[in-house]
Amino acid sequence: MAVHKRGRQSFVLENPPIITAWASIAGKKEVEGPLSHTFDVKCRDTYFGQKTWEQAEKRMQQLAIEKLASKAGLLQADFDLVFSGDLLNQCIGSSFSLCNTGIPHLGLYGACSTMAESLLMASMTVGGGFADRVVAMTSSHFASSERQYRFPLGYGGQRTPTSQWTVTGSGAALVCSRGKGPKITACTIGTVTDLGIKDANNMGAAMAPAAAETIKAHFRDLNTGPKDFDLIVTGDLGQLGKEVLLELMRKDGISIGGKISDCGTLIFDNTTQDVHAGGSGCGCSAITLCGYLLEQLNSGKLKKILFCGTGALLSPTSTQQGLPIPGVCHAVSIAGGR
Amino acid sequence: MAVHKRGRQSFVLENPPIITAWASIAGKKEVEGPLSHTFDVKCRDTYFGQKTWEQAEKRMQQLAIEKLASKAGLLQADFDLVFSGDLLNQCIGSSFSLCNTGIPHLGLYGACSTMAESLLMASMTVGGGFADRVVAMTSSHFASSERQYRFPLGYGGQRTPTSQWTVTGSGAALVCSRGKGPKITACTIGTVTDLGIKDANNMGAAMAPAAAETIKAHFRDLNTGPKDFDLIVTGDLGQLGKEVLLELMRKDGISIGGKISDCGTLIFDNTTQDVHAGGSGCGCSAITLCGYLLEQLNSGKLKKILFCGTGALLSPTSTQQGLPIPGVCHAVSIAGGR
Repeated sequence: MAVHKRGRQSFVLENPPIITAWASIAGKKEVEGPLSHTFDVKCRDTYFGQKTWEQAEKRMQQLAIEKLASKAGLLQADFDLVFSGDLLNQCIGSSFSLCNTGIPHLGLYGACSTMAESLLMASMTVGGGFADRVVAMTSSHFASSERQYRFPLGYGGQRTPTSQWTVTGSGAALVCSRGKGPKITACTIGTVTDLGIKDANNMGAAMAPAAAETIKAHFRDLNTGPKDFDLIVTGDLGQLGKEVLLELMRKDGISIGGKISDCGTLIFDNTTQDVHAGGSGCGCSAITLCGYLLEQLNSGKLKKILFCGTGALLSPTSTQQGLPIPGVCHAVSIAGGR
Repeated sequence: MAVHKRGRQSFVLENPPIITAWASIAGKKEVEGPLSHTFDVKCRDTYFGQKTWEQAEKRMQQLAIEKLASKAGLLQADFDLVFSGDLLNQCIGSSFSLCNTGIPHLGLYGACSTMAESLLMASMTVGGGFADRVVAMTSSHFASSERQYRFPLGYGGQRTPTSQWTVTGSGAALVCSRGKGPKITACTIGTVTDLGIKDANNMGAAMAPAAAETIKAHFRDLNTGPKDFDLIVTGDLGQLGKEVLLELMRKDGISIGGKISDCGTLIFDNTTQDVHAGGSGCGCSAITLCGYLLEQLNSGKLKKILFCGTGALLSPTSTQQGLPIPGVCHAVSIAGGR
């Protein structure tokens, strides 16, 4: 039996699974941002034709998987398995989107790390020969998130400067054993890390320690470092979390300053879009990856990236009970297609 | 590369991963039930020494993994990976229990199917050589579930006859590539199935169609049938859901009547414990498996079972919005250790 495990938290894929197709669905504010040209479906209706925001999220995932099938030249029935999850209580965006489709489904909860977690799971499944044509998918919605995690939008609450703006969007990637496209070469599974931050309006800072731990583990387990990557891209620490990450890495003597970027800072234009510390939500790293990043990799403009999905594993209940915010980060190393 | 995939939804494990240890933590009502002698930790304090029910759930998972390590003769630091999830919004029972332990973690959401889902994922991870010593774990708590999904307990609401009683408990199983114990020989990944049932107090009926689909898929994909199993055990349809499942299977000409059992009907004594249609919750199938069932397999009293975890993928929000209840079921075939 092949042993893919390396070090404490990582594994390599000697026959790297290939991301043969990807699709992104974006909402109104995202379409007004700098990555607009990279989205497959641009929708200015916040409800995506549905009656509720939760059902809009279901619809976004349906659109993502439809578009993914069409871009891959496949039918949805050709997909062997979907790994997906979202931020809604009990992940109803994901489960309702796949209802009665007949596509096998394994549900995940990794908060905003879900795009990386689903991609990591898909790469294990394909790399181990357990299924082929595996979809990694997630979504988030600004309005459903604000209502569920913070205040009803109608309340008109003032947002704090450290807060991030939940992206309305859904991204899906198809992972196969054969085909053309960017390749998943190695992954690092995150640990749940908490440095005691309790401010649910400063999630970037809460997630940065987990990102630092996972990036260090990836370097250590796989004997690699910043020089081996064109880009180390977190999703989504936002502007403040990114600075905390750089500071934490610097303390350990690791300089990633020239290589680091964050999906939460890429997706919006902070000078004109009033999003405070940047974007967030499962959809943020999902549509940044399943558009801009995978296209740059596919065209050879980027040769290798470390895609680091970061999630804040809090709930409104844990915050109300005065508990700190645990973070997690999963890293997926992706090499360009050419 | 080995190809483990079989048919549309299943995979086999030619070098079957081994469940080398298991642990179960049970609450007061569960300890008063017929499986009491099979639990490792029996706690009569609903709070498990914590301040809130949510933190009690965290504590149950901590106790489960501690007990698992001790029964396996390992340190927690020896565990390579934990797959876990629970019913609490954003799965905070699972994430808080692993906080700052340094154990790699992948979070799942499969509602009450989580024990089967985590076991299935663990078997892929170990079977594919991506990690060894992988823990599959979940929990549920009666009081936190009632408050989150139904009514605050202090309200004293009358429960309907079709309702099930959420088990307070946590179960954990250790899956390894080597060692002694019951073996995971094959798995079937479920599809999200909904026949239009909208009554959130009759979840057994809502989940039964998914169970029927997955059991049929397992038989079809792996060319097997009821005769090859000592027991086909669902978790948790309860008494009513079990009858719906039998009826659905009968309609397709498949008789499983002599082989079927359900964790929701095994865990409580319906004649004396006033639980209506039986037990439910992630913890129900978890502590029934990680006690009674695995012990029966290990001692040779059961030679082979099909463990079918069933989950109702609803949320209070989807119910309030008038939507039906999608179900899912994942099946894990486990052979006795002798």
